[in-house]
Amino acid sequence: MQVTVSPRGSMDQLSKAEIQQLQMSSKSPLYQLYRRCSLAVLSSGAHLDNAETMLNSARTFDINILCVERGIKIELINPPKDAFVDGKIMRGIQEHLFSVLRDVLFLNAKLLPSANQQPQEEATNLVFDILRHARALSLDQDPNLIVCWGGHSINEYEYNYTKEVGYQLGLRELDICTGCGPGAMKGPMKGASIGHAKQRYPNGRFIGLTEPSIIAAEPPNQIVNHLIILPDIEKRLEAFVRMSHGIIIFPGGVGTAEELLYLLGIKLNQKNQNEPLPMVLTGPKKSEAYFKSIDNLVAKTLGKEAQAMYEIIIDDPIKVAQTMRQGADDIKNYRKKTGDSFQFNWGITIDHAFQTPFIPTHENMSQLDISKHVDKAQLAATLRQVFSGIVAGNVKSETVQQIEDIGRFQLHGEPEIMQLIDKILQEFVAQGRMKLPGSNYEPCYDIL
Amino acid sequence: MQVTVSPRGSMDQLSKAEIQQLQMSSKSPLYQLYRRCSLAVLSSGAHLDNAETMLNSARTFDINILCVERGIKIELINPPKDAFVDGKIMRGIQEHLFSVLRDVLFLNAKLLPSANQQPQEEATNLVFDILRHARALSLDQDPNLIVCWGGHSINEYEYNYTKEVGYQLGLRELDICTGCGPGAMKGPMKGASIGHAKQRYPNGRFIGLTEPSIIAAEPPNQIVNHLIILPDIEKRLEAFVRMSHGIIIFPGGVGTAEELLYLLGIKLNQKNQNEPLPMVLTGPKKSEAYFKSIDNLVAKTLGKEAQAMYEIIIDDPIKVAQTMRQGADDIKNYRKKTGDSFQFNWGITIDHAFQTPFIPTHENMSQLDISKHVDKAQLAATLRQVFSGIVAGNVKSETVQQIEDIGRFQLHGEPEIMQLIDKILQEFVAQGRMKLPGSNYEPCYDIL
Amino acid sequence: MQVTVSPRGSMDQLSKAEIQQLQMSSKSPLYQLYRRCSLAVLSSGAHLDNAETMLNSARTFDINILCVERGIKIELINPPKDAFVDGKIMRGIQEHLFSVLRDVLFLNAKLLPSANQQPQEEATNLVFDILRHARALSLDQDPNLIVCWGGHSINEYEYNYTKEVGYQLGLRELDICTGCGPGAMKGPMKGASIGHAKQRYPNGRFIGLTEPSIIAAEPPNQIVNHLIILPDIEKRLEAFVRMSHGIIIFPGGVGTAEELLYLLGIKLNQKNQNEPLPMVLTGPKKSEAYFKSIDNLVAKTLGKEAQAMYEIIIDDPIKVAQTMRQGADDIKNYRKKTGDSFQFNWGITIDHAFQTPFIPTHENMSQLDISKHVDKAQLAATLRQVFSGIVAGNVKSETVQQIEDIGRFQLHGEPEIMQLIDKILQEFVAQGRMKLPGSNYEPCYDIL
Amino acid sequence: MQVTVSPRGSMDQLSKAEIQQLQMSSKSPLYQLYRRCSLAVLSSGAHLDNAETMLNSARTFDINILCVERGIKIELINPPKDAFVDGKIMRGIQEHLFSVLRDVLFLNAKLLPSANQQPQEEATNLVFDILRHARALSLDQDPNLIVCWGGHSINEYEYNYTKEVGYQLGLRELDICTGCGPGAMKGPMKGASIGHAKQRYPNGRFIGLTEPSIIAAEPPNQIVNHLIILPDIEKRLEAFVRMSHGIIIFPGGVGTAEELLYLLGIKLNQKNQNEPLPMVLTGPKKSEAYFKSIDNLVAKTLGKEAQAMYEIIIDDPIKVAQTMRQGADDIKNYRKKTGDSFQFNWGITIDHAFQTPFIPTHENMSQLDISKHVDKAQLAATLRQVFSGIVAGNVKSETVQQIEDIGRFQLHGEPEIMQLIDKILQEFVAQGRMKLPGSNYEPCYDIL
Repeated sequence: MQVTVSPRGSMDQLSKAEIQQLQMSSKSPLYQLYRRCSLAVLSSGAHLDNAETMLNSARTFDINILCVERGIKIELINPPKDAFVDGKIMRGIQEHLFSVLRDVLFLNAKLLPSANQQPQEEATNLVFDILRHARALSLDQDPNLIVCWGGHSINEYEYNYTKEVGYQLGLRELDICTGCGPGAMKGPMKGASIGHAKQRYPNGRFIGLTEPSIIAAEPPNQIVNHLIILPDIEKRLEAFVRMSHGIIIFPGGVGTAEELLYLLGIKLNQKNQNEPLPMVLTGPKKSEAYFKSIDNLVAKTLGKEAQAMYEIIIDDPIKVAQTMRQGADDIKNYRKKTGDSFQFNWGITIDHAFQTPFIPTHENMSQLDISKHVDKAQLAATLRQVFSGIVAGNVKSETVQQIEDIGRFQLHGEPEIMQLIDKILQEFVAQGRMKLPGSNYEPCYDIL
Repeated sequence: MQVTVSPRGSMDQLSKAEIQQLQMSSKSPLYQLYRRCSLAVLSSGAHLDNAETMLNSARTFDINILCVERGIKIELINPPKDAFVDGKIMRGIQEHLFSVLRDVLFLNAKLLPSANQQPQEEATNLVFDILRHARALSLDQDPNLIVCWGGHSINEYEYNYTKEVGYQLGLRELDICTGCGPGAMKGPMKGASIGHAKQRYPNGRFIGLTEPSIIAAEPPNQIVNHLIILPDIEKRLEAFVRMSHGIIIFPGGVGTAEELLYLLGIKLNQKNQNEPLPMVLTGPKKSEAYFKSIDNLVAKTLGKEAQAMYEIIIDDPIKVAQTMRQGADDIKNYRKKTGDSFQFNWGITIDHAFQTPFIPTHENMSQLDISKHVDKAQLAATLRQVFSGIVAGNVKSETVQQIEDIGRFQLHGEPEIMQLIDKILQEFVAQGRMKLPGSNYEPCYDIL
Repeated sequence: MQVTVSPRGSMDQLSKAEIQQLQMSSKSPLYQLYRRCSLAVLSSGAHLDNAETMLNSARTFDINILCVERGIKIELINPPKDAFVDGKIMRGIQEHLFSVLRDVLFLNAKLLPSANQQPQEEATNLVFDILRHARALSLDQDPNLIVCWGGHSINEYEYNYTKEVGYQLGLRELDICTGCGPGAMKGPMKGASIGHAKQRYPNGRFIGLTEPSIIAAEPPNQIVNHLIILPDIEKRLEAFVRMSHGIIIFPGGVGTAEELLYLLGIKLNQKNQNEPLPMVLTGPKKSEAYFKSIDNLVAKTLGKEAQAMYEIIIDDPIKVAQTMRQGADDIKNYRKKTGDSFQFNWGITIDHAFQTPFIPTHENMSQLDISKHVDKAQLAATLRQVFSGIVAGNVKSETVQQIEDIGRFQLHGEPEIMQLIDKILQEFVAQGRMKLPGSNYEPCYDIL
Repeated sequence: MQVTVSPRGSMDQLSKAEIQQLQMSSKSPLYQLYRRCSLAVLSSGAHLDNAETMLNSARTFDINILCVERGIKIELINPPKDAFVDGKIMRGIQEHLFSVLRDVLFLNAKLLPSANQQPQEEATNLVFDILRHARALSLDQDPNLIVCWGGHSINEYEYNYTKEVGYQLGLRELDICTGCGPGAMKGPMKGASIGHAKQRYPNGRFIGLTEPSIIAAEPPNQIVNHLIILPDIEKRLEAFVRMSHGIIIFPGGVGTAEELLYLLGIKLNQKNQNEPLPMVLTGPKKSEAYFKSIDNLVAKTLGKEAQAMYEIIIDDPIKVAQTMRQGADDIKNYRKKTGDSFQFNWGITIDHAFQTPFIPTHENMSQLDISKHVDKAQLAATLRQVFSGIVAGNVKSETVQQIEDIGRFQLHGEPEIMQLIDKILQEFVAQGRMKLPGSNYEPCYDIL
């Protein structure tokens, strides 16, 4: 089966030089990445029960770029059948296919080479360039973008709660930004789309920020009408923070806890103390324990100052939405005063520590300074890294193997903090939020 | 609480004379009807569990028409709180409020008086006038409107099935028309709105046709973006038939069976034999028995000719949607040939018997000629009336009382047909589709 | 040659009954009127030098109404060739053709019969109905419609001046309404369309109000994007006054003087003393004499009060446009306070005398009371009628004949006023604004 | 006087780095260029008779870039008053101001530095980049862009003819591209805008291609709704050729003759022999001599082959427009076959000789090989250079001075060709198309 797909969405006309670059890079190592991301997007229409069909098409699937009178087209060979309705590609998937082309091939060929890699400023400018190139920064748009974080494999009652919150956000004409994928990423968008319809708000934005390593695992649902693929996890997190006018954290697993620490670390930065960015932790009554665990950890490590950064709202979607609406309006006034852009928060400072990836080797872990005597923002950054490492030591096959080979991580830090982390991980296990290999939780580290 | 609401949707500017007529008629007997329909529309945002609040507001609720610089406004006194988001009326409800004004007050004041009541032609022209006045007949629109009929209190698996069919219709860019209210009226719209979103089809029409006596019981959900209130049940049925480019019948109760007989009666009319109007009966596997019962009744009364009028599709939403898409395309070609309007089927003949209401008195019932020797179309009409009467005799308090007072209906007809009707009613009871007063089904009629 | 033309512009879908009415009335006496108006519209593309071609097509020209799938079409037989570009009808003309159908055939068949002819209120409601039916009363539009009156055969420097005024109006995003035809009717539209373009104001309205008896003599230029044909001269004048947010009077002939007196008569009505409606008399330096003549007449008959109703601005298009912009803004505020419609001035009173036509028979003329002792508004009305009659007596063949047969008009009135009228007519002759039969101006009346 | 102007038109949101670059470059040598171009655009609203006012504002005029919440703004100090209507900037001028910012400052800061100057391919890609960045290459647009060349100081009857041709082009829904400025640059746009209005074609494009050295002399009239400033004359000429779907040459001076030779040179290139690009020379009857002179020169130098490249149409605007419409349609079919872009002609070959500027020094002139024995395309290129040099030697003060100092240009070439050039220059003088210093034409060269 062989299909030709025309451009749709925010793709410019390309120059001959650019098409050549594209065709060349589609034969380069980049090609594998491009093919895999395209396949992920094409598979998002698939029902879960025909995984085998998908694997089959995966093997024979191929993708080419053609040059035609009005620009370029994409040729698909043996694409997943569920991307099509009566032989025609679904328009949502068509858009996503060209988002992949734009962000994976075109940016790599055109933008990234010329970006010289000075850390801070440059990373931010690059994130801006990618978002603008994807036409995600409209000049006419008032602040109204709410970022929703949370687990992708949550309970049904938690999922319904995210839908209800999304519905209330939608009724207030707020747009949604998530990380793509199912669970707490999908619920708010579904809810908001009903809210938008009831308010006759036709141009709601459903922005999905993803990156190449997770797009296959968490393919964008097709409600996403702005799919943007950032080059790595840190740029993706920075994009979330700079675009958002409010952040909601739903229940999730350890990953969600890490995102929360990332955000706290930025908000605790002294330079950001006047920067408004409302942050709400919310879930249904039955999920209250999750937020208690987290709040306790924050209280005992980062203190009252950090706790003041967020509001915990249990079982009250209307209050969550009202808080976000108010927050977005406050941001509008604030940015008018400061002259900052409405759609991209240049004012917030994101330190180098939050822009560079942390790889949990034994060496990196042993160099962490887990101590309450450092700056709170620094401690938040360190905690995020500790968390990241321990989780890897428990579940990531590669890191588990290293620990079997070399021994436990040797951590320098205050035992009190480590015990808190132990506790919270055990609670996550009890709440069914972590799939640990054995039945008992066993630390993968020693405190020195 | 007192709120002023501006016009939204398809309301013209009014002349002074018209505003005076409106203000006068809002003080006339019509006012009670107008107030009740407005309250129904305002209550559609309410959650089911605060019925008491609604009743309370019902008592103190009032509605006035104001005259302002850009036309008219509506003043609400003590409206239901759930129609508002943070103090502002939901735009969907706002549109519906002005649909009520347009169709209940304005039409009654302006259009209906001048309509002289010659039966056939005139009724059709009036239905056309009402639909056009509501801007529901676009010149630019290709045939793509699918009417969905079915019960409003159906099982969860049946509801999910209607959503799935709606989704597949939406993916094929078909619009939905139902009778408003929950169940099989709401599911297809919800599904189609997701399908439209995935196909980036932004102007999907969700048309709700209702009439004053049922709008309170079945308030329009707010996805409906064209709410039209026809003056009576027969005009509403005619509007369905003349607007539709395909009709889907989901499982329902006796009401759904009546609608089916209405449609069969029209399709069996010799004059309509070339008129394409696809008709599909569909439901999930578990609901197959329902359609078997119905198909059996049709086979044994109206015969093969009538069975050929519809297709029964079990558990295959994709096939249903493909059938409808194909049917709508065929209608486009047919109307091009015949020169008929795309959006209003002037070509189909609806006999007088289908345009006038049937009231099940003992006298009317005894005059029915339930016999297979008449014309099939006539038999379908009679069966619809028999059905209507028996159901009333079983459950409608007024008719039940009459039977207690006067005795059973005395029917002239073939026993075989009556036994078939007995049987299907018992099956509906067994399938839980009828709430009968006692545990045993007891006929309310004698065959002579 | 035979062409079929599809609907364009503000025509609704028609019901079968309406199409039958149309087809019937197109065979009735109305047909001649319809055919003549359609031919006028089709001839507006013609260059002046191929009058013969036009006459030829006039003889063989025919027009029919066809009924097709999406409503109706018009069939043209031997239409003027200049209405077409490479065989396709110009879209501006296409719109005008359907305006004629809408206003001449459809209104006559549908609206007019039901309008019972009670004078005042009813005439106003009918004017409103016709304008609304033509979609000329938008709810979203702020007050910005400037009516331009003036002669259709003016000097080139006067024509250029009207263009310049139109340009300045266009730069201020004001829309134009005139009576169709050339000269002072066309100049302001041409100028405004350039002004709109420079301001990137894409939806400028160019409204042409005409009536059946003059459309042939003054066919609408195709810049007119809302052509509306009122049933008679008085309804047309009323439409001008009720739609306008400012009126500019350019130099013209006697007709223009009559329009001015009509407007003064309305503005002098005590009931209208608070009703804002800016009125500017303007022309280039060389045309100053014209306005001096008129101003002198007003001063000596209607007095200072009437002079205060208008402003004379000589040779200053910018000031004219600023006055109109300011006036339109004032009207917005005024109507907000009074709750009157933005697009249709219900508040202004137009007396019966201004709604009914005046026919200059000897009897009617002799009954006029030309006296300064009556109410000023009444005097203005009378003066308009005197003017109308004298002009007819000088130039209209029918009236000239009557005077030859019966003798001069016998007027009862103050000689002073009549001398003023004599004087102004002589001045118009001197200024080349009147084509009188002989070289000397000779009164056609006696004062008693 | 100090005014702040918001962005309008095709300006993206800028990154902080870009705004800094802009603010820096606005203080660099580039600033003078930027200021001068901005002043030119602001002065296009000025009437010709207040040149002094303009010079005054020129002295005190200043321009700054401000950074605000929604991006950037421009601050104007003492701008020309005629750019404003009642204190608000005209939107057409506002758009042009931001075109200048985009093309002069932004491109210089961002795009040009990274463009490494490999001649051929690179120049084309750069032209493409600039046009795309200005959003002048729409994917949805069918081929319909007609380039109009001709003199900017032409007779009134020639100017009226260009308007009439523009009107006929506009009636056929063709868009216009010129070099900005008055005369043959403005007439076609004015005419086409009336044609577009009559055809209700609302999104007509009026593209003005200019470059920094001529924008002050030929400021864009404000009908231009896409103003693009190319970096130099050659890129501007290339932009004309690659964007156009038809080229009309109106009467002009020597500059127009040069443009014609430029185009002939490209069309004569063997590689372009299949490339459709209709070329029409047209003017009113009275201007026929101009085209005879040119046609004679072409016949005797480049021969029949070159004459076949164009069509001369005298006094027939309809035929000109029909030829262009047909040509644009043919190009659509051709590009569909070849797969070339509709809006940018990648297929046509423009040789190095046409991409690099020619500077008429004595040395460069003496190296020209003016001979019919070379390739025709080469001869056309050479002739263009000869022309360019001779004209400079006659009128450009700098070159005239060089000739006084050093002596006449020494040309190697065929006397026959030179005599032809002499002749055509004398004819241009006779037709009043050249303002030569003395009354007699005196050659500034010797043939060797």
